Amino acid sequence: MLLLHLSDVNEGRWADRLRETLAPYPVVRRGDAFDPADIAYVFVWKPKPDAFEGLTNLKAILSLGAGVDALLRHPGLPDGVPIVRFVDEDLTQCMSDYVVAHVTMHHRLYTRFRADQKARRWSQLYPPAAGKTHIGIMGLGVLGEDAARRLVALGFTLNGWSRSAKHLEGVTSFTGREQFDDFLAATDILVNLLPLTPETAGILNYETFGKLRRDGLIGGPVIINAARGGHQKEADIVRALADGTLGAASLDVFEVEPLPAESPLWDIEACYITPHIAAISNEGRGVPYFSRVIKDHEAGKPLVNVVDRTRGY
Amino acid sequence: MLLLHLSDVNEGRWADRLRETLAPYPVVRRGDAFDPADIAYVFVWKPKPDAFEGLTNLKAILSLGAGVDALLRHPGLPDGVPIVRFVDEDLTQCMSDYVVAHVTMHHRLYTRFRADQKARRWSQLYPPAAGKTHIGIMGLGVLGEDAARRLVALGFTLNGWSRSAKHLEGVTSFTGREQFDDFLAATDILVNLLPLTPETAGILNYETFGKLRRDGLIGGPVIINAARGGHQKEADIVRALADGTLGAASLDVFEVEPLPAESPLWDIEACYITPHIAAISNEGRGVPYFSRVIKDHEAGKPLVNVVDRTRGY
Ligand SMILES: NC(=O)c1ccc[n+]([C@@H]2O[C@H](COP(=O)([O-])OP(=O)(O)OC[C@H]3O[C@@H](n4cnc5c(N)ncnc54)[C@H](OP(=O)(O)O)[C@@H]3O)[C@@H](O)[C@H]2O)c1
Ligand SMILES: NC(=O)c1ccc[n+]([C@@H]2O[C@H](COP(=O)([O-])OP(=O)(O)OC[C@H]3O[C@@H](n4cnc5c(N)ncnc54)[C@H](OP(=O)(O)O)[C@@H]3O)[C@@H](O)[C@H]2O)c1
Repeated sequence: MLLLHLSDVNEGRWADRLRETLAPYPVVRRGDAFDPADIAYVFVWKPKPDAFEGLTNLKAILSLGAGVDALLRHPGLPDGVPIVRFVDEDLTQCMSDYVVAHVTMHHRLYTRFRADQKARRWSQLYPPAAGKTHIGIMGLGVLGEDAARRLVALGFTLNGWSRSAKHLEGVTSFTGREQFDDFLAATDILVNLLPLTPETAGILNYETFGKLRRDGLIGGPVIINAARGGHQKEADIVRALADGTLGAASLDVFEVEPLPAESPLWDIEACYITPHIAAISNEGRGVPYFSRVIKDHEAGKPLVNVVDRTRGY
Repeated sequence: MLLLHLSDVNEGRWADRLRETLAPYPVVRRGDAFDPADIAYVFVWKPKPDAFEGLTNLKAILSLGAGVDALLRHPGLPDGVPIVRFVDEDLTQCMSDYVVAHVTMHHRLYTRFRADQKARRWSQLYPPAAGKTHIGIMGLGVLGEDAARRLVALGFTLNGWSRSAKHLEGVTSFTGREQFDDFLAATDILVNLLPLTPETAGILNYETFGKLRRDGLIGGPVIINAARGGHQKEADIVRALADGTLGAASLDVFEVEPLPAESPLWDIEACYITPHIAAISNEGRGVPYFSRVIKDHEAGKPLVNVVDRTRGY
């Protein structure tokens, strides 16, 4: 039996569509009458504190989020039950769309030309060809690899940072804390696509910004964060944008979401805010994915996209 | 002998570097003492009315501009002399950089999110994956083909419009006036990379805008003009942006350049103005190119990238 426990999304619609695809396999919601011991799969998004109570016979926890940092911190999370996260072509495409749009906007000196426009100033300045600009992607997993591949095709020079070494065409691979400073020193536009773990929390801080390449991009180095708000120190971003350590920033995620109305980030011209919309998991893609996970597992096949709880992602 | 006639750029620097590369082949400038009948090649940019006077033994005219519309309208242009235009990888790369930056910015609803930011409004809206957005490129020559190829690699759906049919992977080819309306009806973001000719002048007008696909892009259809100001009717753009026929526009070129301070375009939030900087021909790339053209031709090889004066490009 599959139990849905989805907050902040239309759970009823997910239930209807999952019932259709999984029938005759039973699908229930929180209000329904069922014995918790019969639940083999629980499908969660922002689970409440009691989400896992009585679920003593779970085969897997299905996470609507691609990132599982919040789920792993859930105090009621049962030990030993595999967690399957959402990995999807469309979600990956949307994330790359966001990353490419913001990288190219900064490379083409958008902030500068927009200020000129407001002043009715005709002032020619020629952005160098893409190859002169070095993009550094932190996290070369499902999302980071796809974004890197697309930026290489556009002609940019690419660096990637991950735990294990990668061999991607056109991407210089840097690994671990030992090579972090070298990675930053070779990077003009820093893109964060890391999972949020104890090792990566707060990694977008003033010290990090100060290590970025300074002569590469007209206007100064840029950061783009599309992973998690917990990766960034917002006070440091405000300070770095004010003193020129950073030239610009694109932020899709925030320490507190929605971003509070009193945040100074809203008013910074060179800070590009989007309301956590870089990439979303929708029913159209999620229903076939999670249905397949359950059907395959019931047919005896191994689970895919299982989170490594020790690594934290 | 090569004569330089370059306005609005550092002609002295071009002369020094061309002399170096072409030596012992003689290179002269306008002020120098020489017999006009000895000039075999004239290298021009924004030539003055008397530019071609006395040049009775020309083998070729070299154009620093990739577009030759102004040159072809020069009243003193000698008949029958081949015109070689600048075609260059770096110039092409820069143009694709510009096009991709503006296409992706509009696709990711930049105008909408920036307005929300100013209002400190957290309002989630998810741009569809790239493939749902249809880009239509007018002109599939050196520049249009490269831009199309890169946009296909990003996952967009591509249409192209040219005189002759094209077979580019992932690009639906439309040709001639007969298929122009079908091309527009299938296009959300219209990119202009046509040469300016009597057939293409004023093609970006209100009637054209009204034929674009209306249900494809949140916010309405978009135009991007990186070719020539003569392609666009600016009064029509202002009207179309005001009444919603267009959702946004990116303009790198203008009817009059520099764009006059009193133009209403400056103040339109959804109009993105850059001062004709999409792509430039620089000495670093131009000197080897034009030196090679002269050396090869002197060695008896045929000229490359020769303009067809009847077609006008
Ligand atoms: N803003 C949004 O709308 C949105 C949407 C979806 C996802 N996200 C975020 O994006 C994150 C990444 O997703 P994904 O699917 O690409 O994750 P993934 O496939 O698990 O990839 C994670 C990458 O990060 C690297 N990494 C992890 N810890 C590291 C460390 N301490 N030092 C260096 N590299 C480290 C991994 O290295 P190895 O390859 O060596 O293991 C891997 O390359 C998610 O966790 C989520 O938070 C945001
Ligand atoms: N803003 C800037 O910084 C900048 C920089 C460089 C160039 N430009 C402009 O970009 C223009 C294009 O350059 P390019 O090198 O790509 O030119 P190109 O190689 O000559 O290509 C021209 C393309 O336009 C098509 N075309 C011409 N007349 C047409 C018509 N009446 N109907 C339909 N299609 C037509 C041609 O069709 P066929 O293939 O069938 O012949 C060809 O595909 C230049 O002329 C210049 O004005 C602007």
